[in-house]
Amino acid sequence: MGRVALTRDDAIRLDDADPLAPLRERFLLPEGVIYLLGNSLGALPREAPAVFDRVVREEWGGRLIDGWNAGWYAQPVELGNRLARLLGAAHGEVVVADTTSTNLMKVVHAALAIARSHGRSRIGYEAGMFPTDIYVTESVATATGGDAVPLHLHDGELPSDLPPDLGAVLLSHVDYRSGRLLDMQRLTAALHEQGALAIWDVSHSAGAVPVRLDDCEVDYAVGCTYKYLNAGPGAPAFVFVRDRLLASTQVLPAGWFAHKSPFAMAPDFTPADDIRRMLVGTHPVVASAGLAASLDVFDDVDLDQLRAKSLALAELFLAALSASDHDVEVVTPTTREQRGSQLSLRHASAYPIVRNLIARGVVGDFREPDVMRFGFAPLYTRYVDAYDAVTTLLEVLTTRTYQEPAFSLRQQVT
Amino acid sequence: MGRVALTRDDAIRLDDADPLAPLRERFLLPEGVIYLLGNSLGALPREAPAVFDRVVREEWGGRLIDGWNAGWYAQPVELGNRLARLLGAAHGEVVVADTTSTNLMKVVHAALAIARSHGRSRIGYEAGMFPTDIYVTESVATATGGDAVPLHLHDGELPSDLPPDLGAVLLSHVDYRSGRLLDMQRLTAALHEQGALAIWDVSHSAGAVPVRLDDCEVDYAVGCTYKYLNAGPGAPAFVFVRDRLLASTQVLPAGWFAHKSPFAMAPDFTPADDIRRMLVGTHPVVASAGLAASLDVFDDVDLDQLRAKSLALAELFLAALSASDHDVEVVTPTTREQRGSQLSLRHASAYPIVRNLIARGVVGDFREPDVMRFGFAPLYTRYVDAYDAVTTLLEVLTTRTYQEPAFSLRQQVT
Repeated sequence: MGRVALTRDDAIRLDDADPLAPLRERFLLPEGVIYLLGNSLGALPREAPAVFDRVVREEWGGRLIDGWNAGWYAQPVELGNRLARLLGAAHGEVVVADTTSTNLMKVVHAALAIARSHGRSRIGYEAGMFPTDIYVTESVATATGGDAVPLHLHDGELPSDLPPDLGAVLLSHVDYRSGRLLDMQRLTAALHEQGALAIWDVSHSAGAVPVRLDDCEVDYAVGCTYKYLNAGPGAPAFVFVRDRLLASTQVLPAGWFAHKSPFAMAPDFTPADDIRRMLVGTHPVVASAGLAASLDVFDDVDLDQLRAKSLALAELFLAALSASDHDVEVVTPTTREQRGSQLSLRHASAYPIVRNLIARGVVGDFREPDVMRFGFAPLYTRYVDAYDAVTTLLEVLTTRTYQEPAFSLRQQVT
Repeated sequence: MGRVALTRDDAIRLDDADPLAPLRERFLLPEGVIYLLGNSLGALPREAPAVFDRVVREEWGGRLIDGWNAGWYAQPVELGNRLARLLGAAHGEVVVADTTSTNLMKVVHAALAIARSHGRSRIGYEAGMFPTDIYVTESVATATGGDAVPLHLHDGELPSDLPPDLGAVLLSHVDYRSGRLLDMQRLTAALHEQGALAIWDVSHSAGAVPVRLDDCEVDYAVGCTYKYLNAGPGAPAFVFVRDRLLASTQVLPAGWFAHKSPFAMAPDFTPADDIRRMLVGTHPVVASAGLAASLDVFDDVDLDQLRAKSLALAELFLAALSASDHDVEVVTPTTREQRGSQLSLRHASAYPIVRNLIARGVVGDFREPDVMRFGFAPLYTRYVDAYDAVTTLLEVLTTRTYQEPAFSLRQQVT
């Protein structure tokens, strides 16, 4: 106790042996900062500025309206197909559009419509999941004559007294606050056994944890691209529809980009037969440039190596913690099967501790009421970063510098 | 007959005297093209590439997560406030978010909820308006237990047999196909007299025709920023809520960016008291850079001068048409009060004529079944452009080159 398990030289040796280490060079990272918030906003791919510039100058400025014929129209599906490998989905099951919240609305509405056709009008959601998941589910259920109910999971297990009339359930693959990874395959199977559709929010796993939507027989999924997927702040999100559900998927709202023949300008809405039916309005062309640049990096990545490094980074951090005396509680499950790509620690002074760390160049964040989060983005987080971060954290905890007045004032931290 | 009303030198003299002429230099336009589709996709502001680059490199890459505290969070309202002048709205009535279609969903749902509280559940929409307006209105009404009915306007007038139980009506300020401008003030007053809320889609007027939402006592409005507002393909749209309706405006879907305290991560949804309640998911930061760059141009523009030039450009075009023999029908009303900033012409061979014009560097477009459209963007369209365009059109019509096989094949034109 009292000393870290590995030395800094050990961490450097791990980086030297890391097959993913060269990928860090494909990002532009600020100097002097250990950025452990790729789980909140991913870093800038080095080529992204050039891709944005090309799209803005050559495609928008140079082609103007003809850009739609020259590639923009196909983009939502093409980008979805590129994302499919990271999500364990087939081509034609994923499309890039709107925000995660809006995509959630679409799938909650679609799932409720299917459930209703089987005499069910109730949708469950994980109590305590990311708030927008709750707000969207509740508001869509209420507006469309359904009923939304929170479900309390324990140790990653569905409640044993699941209501018998659930038509669908929305779960988070990785919990934003605790970093817990749920067993997508087992829980989806359990829901199917109850006759409920399984909807997953993979915002906090996609790009760091291999997602296997098809293997797990997931029905609907949504996720954002600006976290581990590094597509930029507010970049367009994605939505997944299992192929066998597509034809029975009703859309809300119906928008022109979901029409089978959008440019026929027909007064009647006929949804596209393919995944385009999950679109609504005009595709965000420029905003998608960041995702294209990011996928250029991901195209070269072995997802098993990605997962192995993500786990190892957190384990280095955890080993240092467990070798020291301190008063933080590790919230994230320590078993590999239950861990995403972040560590969440609980401390009554979590907020000033996080501010203190940021002042020292270690960027994690705070979540109400007492949780600090540190995300590991295996494309650009080094072992030595994890080592330096935990060492700095232990120093702050030991010296209690977080008790200084400068760090006590709470301000908004996203 | 048989000759144009003005000479090319006259057009050049008009440009020389045009107070808005210097603004053309603030756009990057492709060489050798007369671009008359600003009504569909606006041109690239010269400074936009630099603004995108700054947002991508400095804000995203440099600040990473701290960008939210350093300005991104305030952007949707700040950009809305900058748009307000162009829309005749007050600060706090406009916010930038999502797509036009998604914003339409929000206001259709909100209007129906208010109408329902007065015992009405029917929403009318202009038959033949832009398809997405129809699809969204129908789908939201159906999903939420309302009823959507098409209204057939004649010469810009509401039908005299308006159903008595209408809770709201959705109209287009300028019709995308005909270019007709409706009398927002009179029609809104007529709807209010019937006890119906007035919702306007200003996508085809904002940025070229002064919009006076507050003066006209409009209840809700939506619009896109990628047409005359020049914010780039698929740029975020906007939504307007009359201040007195804000408190009673229900939101669908409820998303975390609409929460009064989004970062409290509360399980219960409490909508923001201000216009932020019309947000849903994470603000599209990078995509908004184009709008910021475009508004830098608009900030210097007198809207009356803008309107005067828009009308004069079309009148030059119309004068040339009326001085010649040809077989096109002018669909757009020729009176100033009923005209937006585009001219729509009908011809049985509209499609090959448009393709022929494009081959000659005059870019208009085609809308099913037989309409060709030419938009005048007074920030960058010159009088000489209008002159050259109409002269080329007359040449194509006279020589009938559009009958050549190369121009007969129909392909998608956005």
